[in-house]
Amino acid sequence: MRIDVWSDIACPWCYVGKRRLEAALARFPQKDSIELVWRAFELDTQAPPVRDPQVSYAERLSRKYSVPVADAQGMIERMRRTAAADGLDFRFDRIRPGNTFNAHRLLHLAHKNGLQDALKERLLRAYLSEGEAIGETAVLRRLAVDVGLDDTEVQAVLDSDRFGLEVRQDEAEASERGIRGVPFFVVAGRFTLSGAQPPDALLQLLTTAWQQLQAPPAGSEGESCGPEGCG
Amino acid sequence: MRIDVWSDIACPWCYVGKRRLEAALARFPQKDSIELVWRAFELDTQAPPVRDPQVSYAERLSRKYSVPVADAQGMIERMRRTAAADGLDFRFDRIRPGNTFNAHRLLHLAHKNGLQDALKERLLRAYLSEGEAIGETAVLRRLAVDVGLDDTEVQAVLDSDRFGLEVRQDEAEASERGIRGVPFFVVAGRFTLSGAQPPDALLQLLTTAWQQLQAPPAGSEGESCGPEGCG
Repeated sequence: MRIDVWSDIACPWCYVGKRRLEAALARFPQKDSIELVWRAFELDTQAPPVRDPQVSYAERLSRKYSVPVADAQGMIERMRRTAAADGLDFRFDRIRPGNTFNAHRLLHLAHKNGLQDALKERLLRAYLSEGEAIGETAVLRRLAVDVGLDDTEVQAVLDSDRFGLEVRQDEAEASERGIRGVPFFVVAGRFTLSGAQPPDALLQLLTTAWQQLQAPPAGSEGESCGPEGCG
Repeated sequence: MRIDVWSDIACPWCYVGKRRLEAALARFPQKDSIELVWRAFELDTQAPPVRDPQVSYAERLSRKYSVPVADAQGMIERMRRTAAADGLDFRFDRIRPGNTFNAHRLLHLAHKNGLQDALKERLLRAYLSEGEAIGETAVLRRLAVDVGLDDTEVQAVLDSDRFGLEVRQDEAEASERGIRGVPFFVVAGRFTLSGAQPPDALLQLLTTAWQQLQAPPAGSEGESCGPEGCG
């Protein structure tokens, strides 16, 4: 059973959502039958490769929402605490926002090599916990090689526009599905859940989808009548 | 939210399934938003209008399955008891099997007149509890008028092939969906349940379907990030 998750790298709740999905999968009896695919969603397609590191995350939020810096700091603190409860160490103090288009292109390369989940995890940790500038190609290259991708192949992707179309296709499908926030979970192509919901909600989604896919089309579950009689 | 139920008249479990669906709907908070449509499924398209009433239902089952009459009687008794637990009085001793094509044509007429559920109930009761020959046009006409259909209109349908195509379309869709036994429930066109399952299972199906249909496409349920920020 396939799970598509639309998400970005520069997205705190996407990392939380990944942890919660993992917690749900750990309790899902058929987890070995799951194919997990990370789909691209850029929160800011116009972001520069690396933003000005002199401006703090709280200040950026403060300007964006026109709220006092103290309020922005409160929002950040709430995200940090929620993430900590899920075992994640968010370091907004060292965050280095940037453009994630190239990161998504590398995730497509990683998918072809069976390393997509590993790279997704590496990129999220790099961005949210380690203060890595995930908009810089040198950083991306190092992180991709970290998880086992071939250095030459990674460089070839970064030096070209390879997988750019695939990223745009992910985003076009997100748009068709009406997805305007991430993470967004789609199980078996049609069972959906929006946002970083608790593992219980994700497990319920997986269970429902699994039951529906397993439901035999013929009347063999409940008592029923067929051309050969009732049973 | 639409519920399509494929079923026949000459079908004990279909009547049980109808009662269980009603029990589930009684506990479904959004029951006023439900549109219930009964779809045609003939268990025996080749059945004669009325079968030989000299052969008991147990004897018919016995011949069909090549089992002793006593075993067939046991199957019947099991169905009778299950139905009784759902408040239904099955009288296999007086049953008069017949062809149900015309009954299904009238159900399409009744649907156009907002009386489909009433006629479905009337036909099932007539067949399974009252020993009515639901393959006979005179009987069908009386039962249809019972629930409020216009006598002239009913007769016009019975005298023509009107709604025959609609019945065949129902059955073609059942075939496409792989339905080989009834009752078969389809909620919102895609959430399915096979057989007369307990009200709890039907309620779970309705709840799942409702939640999925209500799920907002944007990230407003769980915590998520969008182009305007994280919240």
